[in-house]
Order: sequence, then C-alpha cells, then structure tokens
Amino acid sequence: MNLNVYLAGQIHDDWREDVKQKAKEKNLPLQFFEPMTNHDRSDDIGEEILGKQPDAIFKDEAASAINNLRTKILMQKSDVVIALFGEDYKQWNAAMDVGSAVALGKPVILIRPSSLHHPAKEMANRAQLVVTDIDQALQALSYIFETE
Amino acid sequence: MNLNVYLAGQIHDDWREDVKQKAKEKNLPLQFFEPMTNHDRSDDIGEEILGKQPDAIFKDEAASAINNLRTKILMQKSDVVIALFGEDYKQWNAAMDVGSAVALGKPVILIRPSSLHHPAKEMANRAQLVVTDIDQALQALSYIFETE
Amino acid sequence: MNLNVYLAGQIHDDWREDVKQKAKEKNLPLQFFEPMTNHDRSDDIGEEILGKQPDAIFKDEAASAINNLRTKILMQKSDVVIALFGEDYKQWNAAMDVGSAVALGKPVILIRPSSLHHPAKEMANRAQLVVTDIDQALQALSYIFETE
Amino acid sequence: MNLNVYLAGQIHDDWREDVKQKAKEKNLPLQFFEPMTNHDRSDDIGEEILGKQPDAIFKDEAASAINNLRTKILMQKSDVVIALFGEDYKQWNAAMDVGSAVALGKPVILIRPSSLHHPAKEMANRAQLVVTDIDQALQALSYIFETE
Amino acid sequence: MNLNVYLAGQIHDDWREDVKQKAKEKNLPLQFFEPMTNHDRSDDIGEEILGKQPDAIFKDEAASAINNLRTKILMQKSDVVIALFGEDYKQWNAAMDVGSAVALGKPVILIRPSSLHHPAKEMANRAQLVVTDIDQALQALSYIFETE
Amino acid sequence: MNLNVYLAGQIHDDWREDVKQKAKEKNLPLQFFEPMTNHDRSDDIGEEILGKQPDAIFKDEAASAINNLRTKILMQKSDVVIALFGEDYKQWNAAMDVGSAVALGKPVILIRPSSLHHPAKEMANRAQLVVTDIDQALQALSYIFETE
Amino acid sequence: MNLNVYLAGQIHDDWREDVKQKAKEKNLPLQFFEPMTNHDRSDDIGEEILGKQPDAIFKDEAASAINNLRTKILMQKSDVVIALFGEDYKQWNAAMDVGSAVALGKPVILIRPSSLHHPAKEMANRAQLVVTDIDQALQALSYIFETE
Amino acid sequence: MNLNVYLAGQIHDDWREDVKQKAKEKNLPLQFFEPMTNHDRSDDIGEEILGKQPDAIFKDEAASAINNLRTKILMQKSDVVIALFGEDYKQWNAAMDVGSAVALGKPVILIRPSSLHHPAKEMANRAQLVVTDIDQALQALSYIFETE
Repeated sequence: MNLNVYLAGQIHDDWREDVKQKAKEKNLPLQFFEPMTNHDRSDDIGEEILGKQPDAIFKDEAASAINNLRTKILMQKSDVVIALFGEDYKQWNAAMDVGSAVALGKPVILIRPSSLHHPAKEMANRAQLVVTDIDQALQALSYIFETE
Repeated sequence: MNLNVYLAGQIHDDWREDVKQKAKEKNLPLQFFEPMTNHDRSDDIGEEILGKQPDAIFKDEAASAINNLRTKILMQKSDVVIALFGEDYKQWNAAMDVGSAVALGKPVILIRPSSLHHPAKEMANRAQLVVTDIDQALQALSYIFETE
Repeated sequence: MNLNVYLAGQIHDDWREDVKQKAKEKNLPLQFFEPMTNHDRSDDIGEEILGKQPDAIFKDEAASAINNLRTKILMQKSDVVIALFGEDYKQWNAAMDVGSAVALGKPVILIRPSSLHHPAKEMANRAQLVVTDIDQALQALSYIFETE
Repeated sequence: MNLNVYLAGQIHDDWREDVKQKAKEKNLPLQFFEPMTNHDRSDDIGEEILGKQPDAIFKDEAASAINNLRTKILMQKSDVVIALFGEDYKQWNAAMDVGSAVALGKPVILIRPSSLHHPAKEMANRAQLVVTDIDQALQALSYIFETE
Repeated sequence: MNLNVYLAGQIHDDWREDVKQKAKEKNLPLQFFEPMTNHDRSDDIGEEILGKQPDAIFKDEAASAINNLRTKILMQKSDVVIALFGEDYKQWNAAMDVGSAVALGKPVILIRPSSLHHPAKEMANRAQLVVTDIDQALQALSYIFETE
Repeated sequence: MNLNVYLAGQIHDDWREDVKQKAKEKNLPLQFFEPMTNHDRSDDIGEEILGKQPDAIFKDEAASAINNLRTKILMQKSDVVIALFGEDYKQWNAAMDVGSAVALGKPVILIRPSSLHHPAKEMANRAQLVVTDIDQALQALSYIFETE
Repeated sequence: MNLNVYLAGQIHDDWREDVKQKAKEKNLPLQFFEPMTNHDRSDDIGEEILGKQPDAIFKDEAASAINNLRTKILMQKSDVVIALFGEDYKQWNAAMDVGSAVALGKPVILIRPSSLHHPAKEMANRAQLVVTDIDQALQALSYIFETE
Repeated sequence: MNLNVYLAGQIHDDWREDVKQKAKEKNLPLQFFEPMTNHDRSDDIGEEILGKQPDAIFKDEAASAINNLRTKILMQKSDVVIALFGEDYKQWNAAMDVGSAVALGKPVILIRPSSLHHPAKEMANRAQLVVTDIDQALQALSYIFETE
C-alpha cells in the first residue's frame, strides 16, 4: 500500500523538503503532492500564461485560477492532507484547503506551533490529528504502516 | 422562495447587524444564520458546558467542538454563505468555512477590502462572487429575487 | 405536492411567460424559477454591483459571476428543469445548465424545434424528455399530477 | 503521477492532434481521451450498429446514445477536462460536457478565442481556467508537474 | 412528522387503493406517490404528447420517457418505497425501481407472495423489509410512528 | 429554525423522556425522533408483523429489519444525533448508529459516563461533542439558538 | 486504458462466454466480471457456507446474501454494465442491477430481443444504449477505443 | 482482480493472523488492512507521539485520534470489511466501523458467535453477510473469485 499526501500550507520556507527527507529516512511508501513552492513563480503564473493583467487584483485572480487548478487536481488524488501553519502571513488558502479536505472526506493532520492554538482552534477541531512539528506528523503516518 | 444565508467570518465587530438591517430595508426574504457573535461567550462555551479544562489549549478545543457543532448544523441548512474578512486576526475559521462551503456545493459571496486582495486570492477564486462591501453582497442577493 | 421548475434557456423572447400562463390555466402546482430575463440588466449586473470593469471581457466575467450565483441557488431548489433552445445565438449557458442539471440528478425536459435536432442531439440523449413546444412540456408536467 | 485529460469540444478540425503533439514535446505524463473525431463516423455510428433508423432525428438519437456512452465512460476516468470552442457550429454537446464536468468535480480548462467571450461568459465563470489557445492550456497542465 | 411513500410495482390491479384506504383507517400521516395506474394511459402517453411514433418500439420509448420522468421526480421526493410484485407480467420496471431506490438510500418494503420467493430473492436481500401482504407493510409503517 | 434530533442509544431506561422534558423547559424548538423504546415491543415486532420465526436468531433478524427501517427513515430526517451510552449491555446498535450518522455528515453529541471513557474513545473522537450528562447535551443544543 | 465490464443478467445459458470470446477476437482491453453462472452453485451457496436453513425461503435468503455480496463488490469495480434479458424467467435480479447501476452512475448497455421491447421499455429508457444482440454491444464497446 | 479487505473488530486475540493464513492457503488475491493489533501500542500511541496528556481521558483522546486516522485511511482503500465480534469487551469501535462502512457503501461480512445474536442483531441486519466463523467468511470471499 502506498499513500498520497498533499502538503498544504505556507510556501515561505522549505518545510516540505524536511517532510520528504524524513519520510525517505523512514522508508515510508509516501508520494507527496504540493503547491508551487517558488513563491514568485506562484504569484506570477497568471501573467506568465495569460499575459499582462489590468491591475494587481486581476493579476492575483489569474494566478490563483492556475494555482487552484493545481490544488484541486492534486488534492483529489491524495489520501491524506498535512497542513502546516506558521506565525506569519494570513495563510487563508491553507485554511481553505483544510475546509475543502475535510468536506471531501480526506483526513487532515494539522501542524501548528502551540503559540497558535487559539486562532487555529476550529481547524484543530476539524482535523483528524493536531501536532506541533513535522516529526510528529511523520510518526503518525509511519504508524499507519506498522503492525506492532 | 426564501433563502437561508450563513454569515461566516470575524466576530469582532457588528457587521452582521448591518447585513440584517439592510436586508430588512430591502424586504428580502432571507433568514440569517451565524456563529455566536459574543466573543467571550464563544471562547468560554467549552468550559461553560464541560467544566474547567487542563490548560488554554484544551479550553480552546472544548469551545471549538461546540462552536463547530453550531457551524456544521447551520451551514447544512444554508443556501448561500457570505464570508467577510477584515484586516485583523488570523480568521482561519472563516477561511476554513469557505473551503467547506464550496466543497459542499454552497455558493460563497466573499467580502474583503481591496487591500486584502493578495492573501484572499485563492478564496476569491473559489468564491462565486467577490465584493468589497456589504451593500454589494446584498445587491447580489436582491438580484436573485428580481425579475427585471 | 408542489414542484419547483427551473426555466433554463435563451432570454431573447418571453417564452417563460407563456409557460407560466399555461401552467396557471391548467392549475398546476408549479413554482417557476428563472434567470434574469431582462437582457440588458443581465449583461450589466456585474458593473452595476462591482463598478466599471477594465474591458468587455472583465465586464462579462463580473456579470456571469452574479448570474451564475443566481442559477446555482435556483437550480439546487428545483425538482425539474425545462431548457428551451431556439434558432439564434450560441446558448452555451443553457447547454451547460443541461449538463449540470443531469449530473445533479435533476430530470431535464428539452424543448427545441425539430430543425435543431442535429446540434441538440447529445443534449436530447441526456434529457429525460425531448419535445418541440411548450404545450408538450406542460402536458408532461401535468401528467405527473394526474391519476388517470 | 499521471493525469488523464478529456478533450471536449468541436471535432471539425484537428486541434486534439495539436494538443497531443505539444504535450509530447513537453514530455508531460498525460493520457488523452477524446470523442470520436471522425465526424462522419460519429454521425453514422447509430445506424452502423443499430441499423437504419426511421428518420434523421432517430438516426441522431441512435448516434448520440453511443457517443454519450463513450463520453460518460471517458469523462469519469479523467482528472481534468479541456474544452475548446470555436467560431462555428452550435457546439452544445461541448457546453453540456462543461456543465457535467463541473458538476462532477472535474476542473475544466476552457479554450475559446477572445472574440467569443460574450457567449462563453457563463462557461468561463464555471471553468477553473480560461485561455485563448492550446499553448496556454498546456502551460497550465505543465505547471502542475513543475516544482519551481 | 409526515412520510412520503412511493408505491412501485404493477399497475394491473388496484392494490394502491387498498394501501391508501388502510393507511387512512389507521390515520397514518402518509402521502402516497405512484405511477400512472391507468394502464392504457400509461402506454399511450408518449404518442398523446409527442404524436404518432414510427412503430411499437418507438411508441414504448416515448411513453417510458414520460413515465420515467414521473417516477424520477416522485421517487426523489419519497422517504420510503413500497414495491409490490405479483404473479403475472415481467414487472422489470418495478424491479429496476427497487434497485434505484436502494442505491439512492431509500429503504424499500418489498411485498411479494411467498410463491415468488425464488425469483424475488435478490430483491428481498436488498430490501429493508420483506412481507407477503399490504397489511404487513402498513403495520411496519405504522410502527415508525408508534412510541409503545 | 427548528432542528430534528435523533435520540440513539439504549432503551433500558427513560433517558429520552428526561431529554424531552428538559428541552421543553428551555423552550427549544426541537423535534425528537427515537427508536421504539418499549423493549419487549422492539424485540417482538418481527414476529408481530411477520409471524412466528424458526428460532431466536431469525426472530431477531425479523425484528431488526423493522427496527432498522425505523432508524434509517428517522435518522435521514435528523439534523443532529444524540447518542447515550450506559454501563450495561453491548449497545452495538447505538455504536453502529454513531458510525452511520458521522458517515452521513450528521453531527453526533455523545453522552457517556466518564467511567466509560476507554471503550468509548474512538466514538468520542468521531463525535462532534462528548459530554457526560443530558444537561450538557441540551446546553449545547440551546447554544445553537442563542445569540449572546 | 482498460475497461471493467459487469455482465448482468440471466445465468441460464452461456451468453457470457460468447461476449468474452468475441471481445477476445476483437482484442478489446476489457476485463469481465460476472455473477456465479453455475446455477445450482448459485442457488446452493447459502447452505454451502451457512449450513442447512429452515426452509426454501431462508435458503434463498442465505444464497442471495452471498450472491449480492459478489454483485456489489464487482459492480463497484466496473466502468460499464451489460445487462442481457431473455424470454424466460422473471430476471428481477438483473432488472434490479440495472436500476442500481444507473443510480450509481454506471452506464448500462441493455441487450434484449425486440420481442421483449414492451416489458423492457422503462429499462430501455434508463439504459445508455439498447441493442438486440451481443455483437452490437461489443461494437459499441469497441467504438470507445477507436479513433476513426 | 484483487480485493482490499479491512479487518475490523477486537484486537485481543490473533484472529487476523488466522484470516490471513487461511486466505494464503486458498491463494486468494486479497490484501488485508487492519488496525494496530498490539493493544498496548494502540493505547499508548497518543502519548508516544504527542507526549504526556493531562489524564486518562485525554490520553485516550490522543490515542484514538491517531487510531482513527489509520482506520479512516485504510477503510477508504478497502473493497469489503470483515468485522469480528467476540464475547468480551464493549467493542464499540468495531460496531461504529460497521456503521461507517455500510454508510460508505462498503459491504460488511459480520462474524459473531451464535451466542451473540441478540446484541448483534441490528448489525446483522445491516451487514451484507453474517457468519459465525472465519472459515465461512473466507468461503464467501473465495466465492467471489470462483466461476463454477
């Protein structure tokens, strides 16, 4: 059995590489899907494909159409979603992804620092599991494959 | 025909009263559902019902279980969701509600100030309509009932 | 038992009034839902609510966001869809509505002149019933309430 | 990860070959599904299998039953739908496919010339992405596989 | 609480009147839906609405399009389905209705004489309840409203 | 807004009357649905309707077909499920009802004494809210209707 | 692309071998699923596994539980269903399978002799394609794989 | 064709090894999924990953979050569920799994000793097949692959 894991959340540091590296060390049969993590590319993809837009709002709309195309397809192919929230930025797209995943019946593992417990509390309640770091999330995924 | 409208979003000002007042002025046959808007009550409801919890995280978990019970029931009874985002706070619960609503097939009207277009861009793309103020949201709902 | 009927299709003549008048004459317990049938209003509703848009394409996008908000809500409340196609215009929105309705499990009654049988053939195959005029569609709806 | 792509739309030119050729050049792991693109074969398949029909309408009904059998099976196996609209013909079947795909949760990439923005506006609003040419559609699909 | 009950099955005798009469005697808050029970009308409705068809097969296709329109709408409005099978006729439409109802999550009460237990065995297994006469079916529906 | 509440769980004491009495005192607009709470009637209903069965296992199968008919219909009409577990009996039917309700998207309020926390732990995790007594469950339902 | 095909219908002759042989001759990438076609085995499987039952009705119930287990699993794995009806027997299980398949979104190819058009008319209307012999059904499946 | 089988039920003896051994002897193409069957590990996994919890109830909540994460993922990948109930323990988690599986459309094979027929009767009615021992369950699964 293999599992597909969508890595939702902020794209401002390289936490996804950490997840992938640690999964590899544990030899877990996981395939990871993720959004475009090159931040500039993610912001510019709308104009890259559709050309110059009238203003910053339309530029964002063009980019998010393409980024959501990616998210929709990849999330539908996933068995479980890991969503990581950090201290900075609004991260509304990640919170929306949590809502979508739960409504689609995909279990969510929420990673958030304890300091963020209050704003993340409703997500925590909807998530199947709440942890504070990547190692814990991988322990949980590893546990699915263990027999004793 | 009546429509049920769930008012998702921040509970730090009285924007929902504004929506309801304006709907009344327009004589729109709308029934509004909303989260508990008394912020302290919302934060304390877990301990109010379940008793003192071990720490602030468990207090939040208890409260969000009850607040999400309310949200789940009310959103399932809604035909359309209005979600308002403001400048302050993380508002992850509201973003999660947007994701849930879209995945459940409920159209979302997103209200956000233009200044927030960038962090709200993925939500904007998933919403059926994006506006910047309450009057526009009500114009759109009014339009559903108009014949010319 | 009452039935809700969504009247999809072109808005360039007043065929919906004909449907409603004939349903009234037959005393059928039908409630009709329909798109905005004032064509100019339908085209302008985006700018009416959201303000001037950068060009005609963005104007259309703004209008269709609001028109689709209306369609989505009304179609979900409907038990059956009547879709009428005429000789003029592309009418792609109506054809899309047929696809949506069928996928949502709503039976579709397709009205089209015999002359259009070839371009309408795939829709005809997906529709539950194909007729050539409004009287036939109402006869079929009337039959649902008849016992002999 | 491989993606299955259904190529909906008109069968009057060889745009699908163009898509497939360009996907090959980009080495994209895409499998394409499509309707019967031999137009005469598509029109005649009903009588080819079921024998001579009473008239042109019944001939069309027989053909569309078999063409829709093909479409239904292939669309259910697809992860994403590309729908191309051109200047000529009614193309109602393609518009219906867009409606079906969206209702089934399959993201749609709509390709249409800018000149058709008005009749295509409601489809544009329901599509996940709207572009004007095949290259843009493939750029978007390519982007799903890119990591930077 | 009221329940809507669809009465599927053969239309060659007046068993439905028996059901309705007995429900009335028991004062059960049931609303009954049923197919057209005038057999000739049911067979002729296609040509009545659509005009003369090329042959008996096309006449049947026309009639069944309209009869299935009725069945689809009424079954979707039902909370429970009673399906009665007798000794005569193929009754494939009723067996198909049983399959549809179960797949749609509607519980089925199957009424069939003991003598038909063998051909009805797979339906019996899918039905929520199997009885041999109308009185038993009504006892079961009555039980839903009883508190002791 | 009214809510329908299904009261799942053991039928060996009159806890449901307690729920209903307290809801009445609070003037909550709740309609309660419940299984047959007359234990003997519930066990005998199979033979009451279907006649003497070959042995105790078949008697139970007959009874549970009718009791599940009741449960299925009533749970589909419910907005929320309260499931109460006590010290005695296996109560597997109630645990199964919890699983069904959650899978159908109905939020569950689990009532169980603290002493049973260990065997009820997986249900507790799937329930939207876990409480230890009826008063707490009603406080939570009351909260859904409160605005401050 | 491979397709899974469930072969529903009567098990009194070896029509399924005919289908499989012809698919092989055409080199079609089809995997066929089917019910137990050894009629005695199918009737006896309940007692074979569960032991002697009280009477013929309970024997049938035991057998159909196991045969429906098989049907449910195999139909869920199928992309398309071929259902063949012949002159003899009630064949209610096959008609029920047609209803289930359609409600589950699986397209059905109905094979029935023209002589049976009247009793099969409602199934014909729900099926995606109606043919009179096995060769036609295979032509239709073959067509799905053809490009010109 | 391979089938995925989830083995729900008590983890206090090694019945799952028995199932797997017997499936191997019969050369059945089955892949088995199961909960963590090391009982202590299952109870301690919450604190193992999340650290020391405030009390035994919170310890259980932490463990069941992770055990349910495992169950959810594995059950969604399963084609059929075998649920075994024994004389001891509450086994509410297994009964809840039965309810979930049925609601998700997964057929359930229930194994329970005859002595437990009364408490298991509602589960028995919802299960697709009820047997008393592992050999019978495997005979039923074997039958799905047999052609005569």
